[in-house]
Amino acid sequence: MEIASPQPSTDEGSHLALDIGGSLIKLVYSSNTSEPDDKGKQSSKECSGVSNDSNDYPVLGGRLHFAKFETSKINDCLEFISSKQLHRHGRWHHEAAGHDKDTIKATGGGAYRFADLFKEKLGVGLDKVDEMDCLVSGANFLLNAVHPEAFTYINGREEYVQIDPNDLYPYLLVNIGSGVSMIKVDGVGKFERVSGTSVGGGTFWGLGRLLTNCKSFDELLELSHNGNNRVIDMLVGDIYGGADYMKIGLTSTTIASSFGKAISENKELGDYRPEDISRSLLRMISNNIGQISYLNALRFGLKRIFFGGFFIRGHAYTMDTISVAVHFWSKGEAQAMFLKHEGFLGALGAFMSYETHGIDTIITPSS
Amino acid sequence: MEIASPQPSTDEGSHLALDIGGSLIKLVYSSNTSEPDDKGKQSSKECSGVSNDSNDYPVLGGRLHFAKFETSKINDCLEFISSKQLHRHGRWHHEAAGHDKDTIKATGGGAYRFADLFKEKLGVGLDKVDEMDCLVSGANFLLNAVHPEAFTYINGREEYVQIDPNDLYPYLLVNIGSGVSMIKVDGVGKFERVSGTSVGGGTFWGLGRLLTNCKSFDELLELSHNGNNRVIDMLVGDIYGGADYMKIGLTSTTIASSFGKAISENKELGDYRPEDISRSLLRMISNNIGQISYLNALRFGLKRIFFGGFFIRGHAYTMDTISVAVHFWSKGEAQAMFLKHEGFLGALGAFMSYETHGIDTIITPSS
Repeated sequence: MEIASPQPSTDEGSHLALDIGGSLIKLVYSSNTSEPDDKGKQSSKECSGVSNDSNDYPVLGGRLHFAKFETSKINDCLEFISSKQLHRHGRWHHEAAGHDKDTIKATGGGAYRFADLFKEKLGVGLDKVDEMDCLVSGANFLLNAVHPEAFTYINGREEYVQIDPNDLYPYLLVNIGSGVSMIKVDGVGKFERVSGTSVGGGTFWGLGRLLTNCKSFDELLELSHNGNNRVIDMLVGDIYGGADYMKIGLTSTTIASSFGKAISENKELGDYRPEDISRSLLRMISNNIGQISYLNALRFGLKRIFFGGFFIRGHAYTMDTISVAVHFWSKGEAQAMFLKHEGFLGALGAFMSYETHGIDTIITPSS
Repeated sequence: MEIASPQPSTDEGSHLALDIGGSLIKLVYSSNTSEPDDKGKQSSKECSGVSNDSNDYPVLGGRLHFAKFETSKINDCLEFISSKQLHRHGRWHHEAAGHDKDTIKATGGGAYRFADLFKEKLGVGLDKVDEMDCLVSGANFLLNAVHPEAFTYINGREEYVQIDPNDLYPYLLVNIGSGVSMIKVDGVGKFERVSGTSVGGGTFWGLGRLLTNCKSFDELLELSHNGNNRVIDMLVGDIYGGADYMKIGLTSTTIASSFGKAISENKELGDYRPEDISRSLLRMISNNIGQISYLNALRFGLKRIFFGGFFIRGHAYTMDTISVAVHFWSKGEAQAMFLKHEGFLGALGAFMSYETHGIDTIITPSS
């Protein structure tokens, strides 16, 4: 299946929608060409300071395009939009609706914070769309309309899951951006933000930057591949002289205290490998999010938890830790699922808010 | 009310019990004197490397004494026990029970890890008592028998709570040591460890050591007094350009992402004040524990959550953050309570396991 953009009512082109978060700006835009929009050329620009491997980031294909920038590099983003004249493409809609000026649909806190900047630099207003609305409509769209989209990650293997649209709701949506939102979704437009945590992607990257010399989130994530968290984490076996504490279900390798070995007087920050620090940090945060998510799913009797947001980035160890955490705490009752387009839920939701026809209208059968 | 030690069946003196955790060794011992056991003189020795302010640590008084050492300084602890001949005092009990050698009741992982060392250095065995059993019996003892013991901490004020022993159970006991255990307590000896988290006191001290130059846990805690977490945490207002996001109940000062501002490229670790780092860290961990505790209390319909463990140390900001977290997440339905003898639950439980008469026998009316 291929996803075509909503058909604009003029030939001018199509839309741009933004999700401006605390750390990242996510863009979804459509174009009239079915080519991948000279992607190779763009990518280094789009992803300046964010990642070197974003070429690999999955794209739905066809005429929907995805890009991201660091929020701190918003000027690069503005330049990108300007160079492609993306801010001109939404005009048809608002003219049709009787608006007298160009606006771009935008969600996330930056839609408020940067509204004046967009006006000044691009001469367009930001038409603010509620962040939770966008996350939910983006997730509902992907889960209803895109296959394959959702997958489990167990023992190092992705397994795509066919979602029956008649058996999708209710579910828990966990969006891991700088912070984390947990949303109980009961249907199209029916949802409640039931919880969240401030320990999220911004914590991983913020603490990681302070503790290592990494220059980017992805570099930090990459480091964790070769790390060993047991150097820094205090395990049950470290406390129990190598033994398990099986009476309460804890094996000797269970982490008793994240970063608990770093209390040692004999070692300073410089004595630890950045790889090990990154791994401990990633495991601490992923495990914590998995646990809080499960507890909220349990609260509302939700069996399926979908994890989205740019923190995950298709990273094996992150998904593995979240999956294991959900499995461990739920004793196998609940299951973590991931989304191929995890990072763009909010931007997709904002994009879809241009239409009033619902998500069905933007799907066309693939060739 | 004053608490006297259990009456030994000989005149030899009385007992010593140990709780040897991942970071700290806690001692409870009784003596025949009603004097406070030259406490002023001991304290600097007892607390070497742990704290300078432990003189202020509340003591039940009478003939029960409390002390703590860092687990890494176990030799200081052995020397202390030896100098006071505390390991000789438990003998009566085991002789009476037909044991042929001296043993000391001990709980925590170190009861396994250090058993050989105690044998070698002091010639005594460690009679291992289950850690959860000890935490629960210690807490039940304090909550049933000691007044004032439990208190709430709201808006900077401690308020002691009279606990009706007939209306004590069930409750959630959250013990915050290096890691965190969450135990549903249904009565004397009736409990289940329902959850826990690896983000605990060891995480605060471990990450804190790596991020600051603090030499002790208490120094790190002290620093947080003068810190401002808003320098490092990303607030809702930082994302929303100063605005609230009240639709989902988040004010502009809510922390969206702990350490989320540290992603800034313009600042390195050395550019942040240790005070601010300590405060962000303390708030992140206390809030996280408060949240996970509440979710577990909710799961089992428990209205009261008692927080113990040496992480808290009667520290105002820690208790305030935990209280606010429980209040926030429960929308005022659940309440955090603290214990005056928070750090000694396990050691007290081990101490009480010498007796088979239940906790009533070790209480005497105060003068």
